[in-house]
Amino acid sequence: MTTNEKALKMHEEWNGKIETTAKARVASREDLAIAYTPGVAEPCKVIAQDKEAAYKYTMKSNTVAVISDGSAVLGLGNIGALAAMPVMEGKAVLFKEFGGVNAVPICLDTQDTEEIIKTVVHIAPAFGGINLEDISAPRCFEIEERLKKLLDIPVFHDDQHGTAIVVLAGIMNAMKVTGKAKESSKVVVNGAGSAGVAITKLLLTYGFKDVTMCDINGILSKDSPNLNWMQEKMVEVTNLENKSGTLADALKGADIFVGVSAPNIVTKEMVASMNKDAILFAMANPVPEIMPDLAKEAGARVVGTGRSDFPNQVNNVVAFPGIFKGALEGRASQITEEMKLAAAHAIAGLVAEEDLNENNILPEAFDPRVAKVVSEAIKAHI
Amino acid sequence: MTTNEKALKMHEEWNGKIETTAKARVASREDLAIAYTPGVAEPCKVIAQDKEAAYKYTMKSNTVAVISDGSAVLGLGNIGALAAMPVMEGKAVLFKEFGGVNAVPICLDTQDTEEIIKTVVHIAPAFGGINLEDISAPRCFEIEERLKKLLDIPVFHDDQHGTAIVVLAGIMNAMKVTGKAKESSKVVVNGAGSAGVAITKLLLTYGFKDVTMCDINGILSKDSPNLNWMQEKMVEVTNLENKSGTLADALKGADIFVGVSAPNIVTKEMVASMNKDAILFAMANPVPEIMPDLAKEAGARVVGTGRSDFPNQVNNVVAFPGIFKGALEGRASQITEEMKLAAAHAIAGLVAEEDLNENNILPEAFDPRVAKVVSEAIKAHI
Repeated sequence: MTTNEKALKMHEEWNGKIETTAKARVASREDLAIAYTPGVAEPCKVIAQDKEAAYKYTMKSNTVAVISDGSAVLGLGNIGALAAMPVMEGKAVLFKEFGGVNAVPICLDTQDTEEIIKTVVHIAPAFGGINLEDISAPRCFEIEERLKKLLDIPVFHDDQHGTAIVVLAGIMNAMKVTGKAKESSKVVVNGAGSAGVAITKLLLTYGFKDVTMCDINGILSKDSPNLNWMQEKMVEVTNLENKSGTLADALKGADIFVGVSAPNIVTKEMVASMNKDAILFAMANPVPEIMPDLAKEAGARVVGTGRSDFPNQVNNVVAFPGIFKGALEGRASQITEEMKLAAAHAIAGLVAEEDLNENNILPEAFDPRVAKVVSEAIKAHI
Repeated sequence: MTTNEKALKMHEEWNGKIETTAKARVASREDLAIAYTPGVAEPCKVIAQDKEAAYKYTMKSNTVAVISDGSAVLGLGNIGALAAMPVMEGKAVLFKEFGGVNAVPICLDTQDTEEIIKTVVHIAPAFGGINLEDISAPRCFEIEERLKKLLDIPVFHDDQHGTAIVVLAGIMNAMKVTGKAKESSKVVVNGAGSAGVAITKLLLTYGFKDVTMCDINGILSKDSPNLNWMQEKMVEVTNLENKSGTLADALKGADIFVGVSAPNIVTKEMVASMNKDAILFAMANPVPEIMPDLAKEAGARVVGTGRSDFPNQVNNVVAFPGIFKGALEGRASQITEEMKLAAAHAIAGLVAEEDLNENNILPEAFDPRVAKVVSEAIKAHI
């Protein structure tokens, strides 16, 4: 049986990958009087007087909503709310299993930005955090930014920031391996959607000076036609010489390539044109922008992908469970840039100096230390 | 420690009465490839082609949303979304423990009818049913009616229909005890909010001919001022002689009193003015419309209350878990009048003829047969 066949069979067997479980017992009249009426009125009354008490008496303290409109699901595109459910349930499983965080999948039967924002605000009271997922760009930027202003709980679009944090962690360690420095390294990010924009922003926040974004039309510059509002903001802080050209042009003399784009679009020639000890994160899934062996043959020193069958897998699961675990435990009202940098440092720090090499720059997804270390890093920056 | 003190302490200890639990394991790379990417794409693709497959591959098959706007919570009134959370979590516990149904509490930070309707429609894809809870009348009627038209999953306002079903079950058995017949019995329902309206409707559907509704201003008639739109509909089908007067007037010669109103508003004199073998359901909580001993002294034959410390407790927990269990298992698209009557018959039928007496007209909340019998009754009427 192939993985796909087995996945279908198992999904039928599970018939829902998560369930709700009672922590309160209701086996007797007395139980019922405590967990439900009349005793339940007591915590209600306290919360009505003091909102903060909701974190003491309800699941809000440790529960996130995993919210998608199904507009940009994995490699599947705009498949809608219902068909996105298996992915959101899977995400909820990862939240619980890796971070001990309760997560409820909510798939929205609307792709209207205003309706999404209103809906999330309306359902927010039950939750301690909002994990946005698989919402297409550029709507995802506005939805997240406005929700952050409207809500007093953390709002985090994992496709953007989870990816950016893990990529930055990998780059931190890849620079140790190669001896490159952030101030003098030239970076090319290919893909100008949610992940590409967030990666670029976090690299700039971290201290990279020379970042150029590309997309299917080549280098993004102030002269590029048809940029969306977010891309227009990005060309103000990237590609400072306002060059135009192809991805191949951009890669000449570059130190670092980050691809969140399409299969096989980077050639050996392009890699050969990069600076010595080039670092490549080729994260198109399931087929990377360039296969690791080809990149290495062309002179790359460190290559990461999204796949678990090559070294240096960039996997968001090392980030989001610990991030929300920390944010909830520490009662953060949002995930700040400092927290994202701290999370990246924490993830990078899990690879001990003596184990660090070009084929080992990121911790394993199943490393049991990860969520704890990341959550501590988040809490230290609240 | 009092029950209330214990309730507060236990709510702090639980820190949320429900949690989400993973049914899928993610202990290895292979697990991850099946429960999450890339394998998860398979059920997504099938659902994108065939919506019905969501019931095969996702939690939609066995999960309800417990939705409130916090506008009419227990005896607490309009305490808002956040303070309503402990009640909704309690309800979710009862769904799981009594009916095996997963339930997610969703408290809405809006009390605008249109916004509530839109929000519920937007979040519906993840759920197999919607249990509305503690929404004030008359908004609850419109919200439920419109959601039933907009959604293809069951929508059920438990304060209305759960209560009505259990009251009808109790009345069915009380009539067996007293020898009264529905065609010739005179019924007075006191309280013209969500429960009072739904009880009246279900009694009429069942076959009662003579039902009069009262509220704090006395008998509801076509001449009553300030009726809401639902009450205006109700006076077309109740109080057919269009009498006016007080609750005391209404009770003269009545066979059955159903109170969903306020403490101690029924006197011994009123009970004494009722017909022989009077049946009273005095369900104001925690203090009933008349205490059972007083009602008995005044000549009542069967007295039920909402309390567990008197005989004949009217408790919704014998209805809603089985109703949704049956509706979900049978893939009902709504809860029809026939299903409600069937559920009432099923609940009444659990008291064996030889056990039936004026102090034993309803099954125990903890009777393990209840949810199964009710769900079978629902499924038989899909």
